[in-house]
Amino acid sequence: IIGDNTDMYAQAYFAYDSKKSGGFTVSHLRFGKAPIKSSYLVNQADFVACHKAAYVQLYDVLEGIKDGGTFLLNSPWETLEDMERELPGRMKRTIARKGLKFYNVDAVKLAMSLGLGGRINMITQTAYFKLANVIPFDQAVSYLKDSIKKTYGKKGEAVVNMNMAAVDKAVESLVEIKYPESWADAPDTPSLYNDVDPYIAEVVRPILAQQGDKLPVSAFEPDGIVPLGTSACEKRGVAILVPEWQPENCIQCNQCSLVCPHAAIRPILAAPEELEGAPESFVTVDAKGKGLEGLKFRIQPYVMDCQGCGSCANVCPAKEKALLMKPLETQQEAQVANLAFATEHVSLKDDVMDRGTLKGSQFQQPLLEFSGACAGCGETPYVKLLTQLFGERMIVANATGCSSIWGGSAPVTPYCQNKDGFGPAWGNSLFEDAAEYGLGMHDAYAQRRAKLADTVAGILESEGLTPELREALQGWLDNRDDADKSREYGEAVMSALSEADETPELHELWHMSDLFTKKSFWVFGGDGWGYDIGYGGLDHVLASGADINILVLDTEVYSNTGGQASKATPLGSIAKFAAAGKRVKKKELGRMVMTYGYVYVASVSMGADMNQVLKAFKEAEAYKGPSLIIAYAPCINQGIRKGMGKSMEEAKLAVKTGYWPLYRFNPALADEGKNPFILESKAPDGTLNEFLLGENRYAQLEQAKPEVAQKLREEMARQYQERYEDLKTLSELPADKTGGEK
Amino acid sequence: IIGDNTDMYAQAYFAYDSKKSGGFTVSHLRFGKAPIKSSYLVNQADFVACHKAAYVQLYDVLEGIKDGGTFLLNSPWETLEDMERELPGRMKRTIARKGLKFYNVDAVKLAMSLGLGGRINMITQTAYFKLANVIPFDQAVSYLKDSIKKTYGKKGEAVVNMNMAAVDKAVESLVEIKYPESWADAPDTPSLYNDVDPYIAEVVRPILAQQGDKLPVSAFEPDGIVPLGTSACEKRGVAILVPEWQPENCIQCNQCSLVCPHAAIRPILAAPEELEGAPESFVTVDAKGKGLEGLKFRIQPYVMDCQGCGSCANVCPAKEKALLMKPLETQQEAQVANLAFATEHVSLKDDVMDRGTLKGSQFQQPLLEFSGACAGCGETPYVKLLTQLFGERMIVANATGCSSIWGGSAPVTPYCQNKDGFGPAWGNSLFEDAAEYGLGMHDAYAQRRAKLADTVAGILESEGLTPELREALQGWLDNRDDADKSREYGEAVMSALSEADETPELHELWHMSDLFTKKSFWVFGGDGWGYDIGYGGLDHVLASGADINILVLDTEVYSNTGGQASKATPLGSIAKFAAAGKRVKKKELGRMVMTYGYVYVASVSMGADMNQVLKAFKEAEAYKGPSLIIAYAPCINQGIRKGMGKSMEEAKLAVKTGYWPLYRFNPALADEGKNPFILESKAPDGTLNEFLLGENRYAQLEQAKPEVAQKLREEMARQYQERYEDLKTLSELPADKTGGEK
Ligand SMILES: Cc1ncc(C[n+]2csc(CCOP(=O)(O)OP(=O)(O)O)c2C)c(N)n1
Ligand SMILES: Cc1ncc(C[n+]2csc(CCOP(=O)(O)OP(=O)(O)O)c2C)c(N)n1
Ligand code: SF4
Ligand code: SF4
Ligand code: SF4
Ligand code: SF4
Ligand code: SF4
Ligand code: SF4
Repeated sequence: IIGDNTDMYAQAYFAYDSKKSGGFTVSHLRFGKAPIKSSYLVNQADFVACHKAAYVQLYDVLEGIKDGGTFLLNSPWETLEDMERELPGRMKRTIARKGLKFYNVDAVKLAMSLGLGGRINMITQTAYFKLANVIPFDQAVSYLKDSIKKTYGKKGEAVVNMNMAAVDKAVESLVEIKYPESWADAPDTPSLYNDVDPYIAEVVRPILAQQGDKLPVSAFEPDGIVPLGTSACEKRGVAILVPEWQPENCIQCNQCSLVCPHAAIRPILAAPEELEGAPESFVTVDAKGKGLEGLKFRIQPYVMDCQGCGSCANVCPAKEKALLMKPLETQQEAQVANLAFATEHVSLKDDVMDRGTLKGSQFQQPLLEFSGACAGCGETPYVKLLTQLFGERMIVANATGCSSIWGGSAPVTPYCQNKDGFGPAWGNSLFEDAAEYGLGMHDAYAQRRAKLADTVAGILESEGLTPELREALQGWLDNRDDADKSREYGEAVMSALSEADETPELHELWHMSDLFTKKSFWVFGGDGWGYDIGYGGLDHVLASGADINILVLDTEVYSNTGGQASKATPLGSIAKFAAAGKRVKKKELGRMVMTYGYVYVASVSMGADMNQVLKAFKEAEAYKGPSLIIAYAPCINQGIRKGMGKSMEEAKLAVKTGYWPLYRFNPALADEGKNPFILESKAPDGTLNEFLLGENRYAQLEQAKPEVAQKLREEMARQYQERYEDLKTLSELPADKTGGEK
Repeated sequence: IIGDNTDMYAQAYFAYDSKKSGGFTVSHLRFGKAPIKSSYLVNQADFVACHKAAYVQLYDVLEGIKDGGTFLLNSPWETLEDMERELPGRMKRTIARKGLKFYNVDAVKLAMSLGLGGRINMITQTAYFKLANVIPFDQAVSYLKDSIKKTYGKKGEAVVNMNMAAVDKAVESLVEIKYPESWADAPDTPSLYNDVDPYIAEVVRPILAQQGDKLPVSAFEPDGIVPLGTSACEKRGVAILVPEWQPENCIQCNQCSLVCPHAAIRPILAAPEELEGAPESFVTVDAKGKGLEGLKFRIQPYVMDCQGCGSCANVCPAKEKALLMKPLETQQEAQVANLAFATEHVSLKDDVMDRGTLKGSQFQQPLLEFSGACAGCGETPYVKLLTQLFGERMIVANATGCSSIWGGSAPVTPYCQNKDGFGPAWGNSLFEDAAEYGLGMHDAYAQRRAKLADTVAGILESEGLTPELREALQGWLDNRDDADKSREYGEAVMSALSEADETPELHELWHMSDLFTKKSFWVFGGDGWGYDIGYGGLDHVLASGADINILVLDTEVYSNTGGQASKATPLGSIAKFAAAGKRVKKKELGRMVMTYGYVYVASVSMGADMNQVLKAFKEAEAYKGPSLIIAYAPCINQGIRKGMGKSMEEAKLAVKTGYWPLYRFNPALADEGKNPFILESKAPDGTLNEFLLGENRYAQLEQAKPEVAQKLREEMARQYQERYEDLKTLSELPADKTGGEK
């Protein structure tokens, strides 16, 4: 605004963290009558604004403010009393000692009242111009209003008016906080954290507090290996609304837990005796279902980890919703205590129900939790489910993309380990080489396990083994390609070993103990990777015949870099580099890969058919050859008009309208003389238009070029109908004409 | 042999040129009792052997031989008289002045008499050991024989015995040449060449004579652009047998010309008056066929460019063969004279027959001639044919591979230009990026032609144009995407321009004249490129929808680097990295690409159906969108037991046996409401085994592991049958279920 409308020079640099939502951004702005040539960040500020109340605890936001500068806080705290209670001692001291002018604005309240939801930028900008005095305020207001018309014009008049109102009312909401001189000597507030793990205390916390640049290189491991499960220490508390469980309505389906992108809501099974001393609000009901007799059931929200997307509540199928979204403040105290109780007193009961069922899978510990993905992200629920099915023996090669960012960006890791210390081994090399990287891991293990098998066979030929050891070794040798049995026999070998006399061979065996359990190899990546940049490798690895599984998280754009078109972007969709709507149809990745005949292929959409997702995951993993699963993943880049909390519903509509087909192609069926291809979605239901107009990527073309949009939409309808018929034909072919083969 | 069997140290370095047959190799060998650490080429030699008689003229083979050293020549010249006649003066002087010991061996004659064909290596090796005296001769013989057993053991006893005999008889064939002292002052022999083009005289000849390292950098163009058609200056004369035309048997089908990998046999049409003064042996017959009335016909071999593969004679369909293979010596004089006569006195008649027919295409000048490909190469005939159809407006991006080596390695270029100076524009960037490279060329032209269209439209709005110019400009604007018409109107524009007053706009137009004719964009590469390393790009470019054509020359291995397995290598084939037979089936590239629906796809095999190749080439080029042609290309790496002269027959068997399907998938048909997929080969005829056993890549597995080979062959038969049925099903689908679409 200043750069474009005045003769002043402006410089702006934005420093982000890599969180996809509730993340931290620092805007470094300089203005002046003379050209600005500074190439360093602002470290002497006249004005500091903090747009999130929680940051006063988390960050040293006033670092570098000048004496007598201005501090603008956006918080619900409007009185000195509130501030006395909420601000940490260190901040009070800085404010008072530097003699700052201190203002508060409750931008969230104002934005909510105007219908702007969480979008507070107009309010804070106006407040900035009011206080910072860079240009006359009247002038600033008129520039702001011009920019509103320009920016939001396309989104309709209502949006423009809301933003105009925000500018007008912002100043009214501004309150100066007159603080007492005593703040200059305010005592230290106790630390928020009580970290036991030195890695968290000494590495994670400083980085989270934006002080990572001050860490010495020696704080890090030279090989880049980091401890797992560190995202659990963040407890960001960024949700505005969090789910509250209504026990009386709950049908104990566990769907809320399945779909939560952040593993922030989980079912708990407790034995009655474990409930002794539970907080009053730790309500439980009798657990329903075979195998759960005598146990108590409860849905436990992790309110400090929750991102407030509402997906859990939206998906809850109970007749009366068994989850209601409530303000975090109303839940925090009780639920934090409840969670602490559950963690300390209630054991994980992951063996009472079949892990491979929808409900049973959710009694497993998710080994991906509290990632930095966007609220409502469509990618994470798939990966979280995989960790619940195979996590303790998974080895993952991740392509660069959102899944490598929410999957592991410094300083925290959302992949974690179970009580026995097992969890996914995860690595990210490059954007383009994930499949090859994974194949390398696979081949290395294959070689090492072949060596183990040789060693075991050699030992079996020697005399003087205990019967237990002999039996365990033979059992392992015969069952080494079976996930469960290889682990069981491996454990038996290890326990028999601990009682055997040590020979050099047995000693060698001891050192190979990580190899007993059959591993589950996975490659994860987005469509930009799988359809485009990494496709050559994906194709090569699938063609190799190796027993490796590839999951393509298909958001239909390059999400991590802001939504560029990929070959997965459908006809008619707007995307970066396809501003006028994509003009060729989506690549049929699944059909292409099916031509190999020996590759397992599935197309899935969690919101449409959770059980089909489960089936595909289990079959792919079990198939002794390469597998490809293409998963429809709603994403903020699609502009779902109902909001990301409805991403599961959107994913269901995608299937109903014929936009996204569901199928499984299992070569193992061909070996049994059956047609390997099973189509699992129905004919397009004729409501494609409604679906398309519910997403900005299609709806915006409608506004900008209605005729083109109409033509493209007709073409889409035709193509989806035709694709359905093609797939139908394929699914109905007699088994001997289907091309599936090993 | 020396390194492995004695305590002497040996060092060997081989310098090759890039010719695929009849090429030049220098072996630099050092032996000694002390370790050898020299890292430079041998430039002071005790012993020099020259294995090809023609080299005495072409190269300075005695460069760097020591005084009193030994020179071994392999030639048919056994007497001093022969040598007097054949050796150039410079060589005689070196021999005499350095006092060399000079021996000749007629290894070719001996090898022929023993049934070894052209394989002279045992004979020359034995002669070397006899003369060089590095180790006692008896010992050398026994080492040689051991190595024969090791190397040829697998090929059967007959081969072993022939090679043993070669060793035994080699010494008998060795003749010492007692030269007179007068050789020290032998006069210079006149230069072989009479080059007019300075580029050929000053750049090409020195490089061909292995003196390229002595050229200054300033001899080359800084942008890497080289003159076209320079392979014509080589006249290597490396064929042992060349075709002799039998006019009385010829049915004038032109197939010999179509299949010749080197464009070394061509039909000539002459008006009777052009024949005045023709050499007696310049026999012609009345030309047959519509449009050829009154003309004379002749098949003209280019005997000095011929590689002697025999493909032309083998393919000749005349009842009594109209081509017989005869020793070069018997043909050289007459045919060189005949060719010179034809070139000077008989015009090219490329407009008397439809260029798009098999016969008519061969009356077009091939714009790829005399390449360095192997004798009988299966790749070059496809590309040569393309140049006959579209050469004057082709723009080619070539992947690295055989086609980039025979297509343009320094110092000569086999791509040439027609009488008007038009020919293919050809470039090679990397192995992996040919498709992207081609798309860049395409896009650049698309932009430039759009600018031209703008300019033309602008000019049409101005006044004062001559009627001719206006008509020509309008005609071009309306027909700019039609290959022929855009050229015609473009020529009309240019001729009208030359009469118009010069304005700045018309001047601009003049400088854009290269853009009038619609270009034909091609990407060439092998299967290593198209199926593997460059597949990501191939897929991306085809998916883009751009009007660009991709030809994959499928030799089923990485040919240029010696036969590594690619994803095009079929199940059961031996290749490098698949020494025990490939265990997964060939990738179905065509089927994968057909899933786009808007890409033209064809699978062709010249030996099986020449007209289908023509159809596919023409349709692909005409289709206003991306095209992919996968062409079966026999290659020396396949080990065709009948020899590369039978490569066309082998390509026919591949189709008959169901090993290679023929089809065309033309999206334009879908637009007409037809099934776009046309299957053009028949059901497997049951003789797959015979075909497989005729090629070493399959037959060797039979010898090494008969049971595995048998199993794999059965599996192959099953798969090819199944593939045939799949394709049949596809070809019989009703048009609305076929997925073809724009
Ligand atoms: C070779 C290369 N090009 C570009 C990038 C920048 N980049 C990082 S992630 C990404 C997009 C990933 O998109 P996609 O594969 O669809 O995954 P998503 O983010 O949608 O999950 C890009 C372009 C890169 N890391 N490497
Ligand atoms: C990235 C890269 N890897 C390897 C090579 C070496 N190389 C040059 S040509 C070639 C083989 C080409 O095989 P193919 O594409 O099948 O073509 P063909 O030679 O069979 O015609 C290889 C491996 C290279 N040039 N670049
Ligand atoms: S609101 Fe969203 S993040 Fe929070 S528990 Fe529910 S699904 Fe998980
Ligand atoms: S989704 Fe609703 S009904 Fe199902 S377990 Fe969760 S709260 Fe209960
Ligand atoms: S995939 Fe989309 S929703 Fe998920 S983290 Fe990335 S940008 Fe956010
Ligand atoms: S022998 Fe081979 S190279 Fe010679 S003309 Fe015939 S086909 Fe061409
Ligand atoms: S192939 Fe035989 S019959 Fe045909 S043109 Fe050539 S020489 Fe004549
Ligand atoms: S493709 Fe085969 S036959 Fe042709 S030049 Fe290459 S190696 Fe020789």
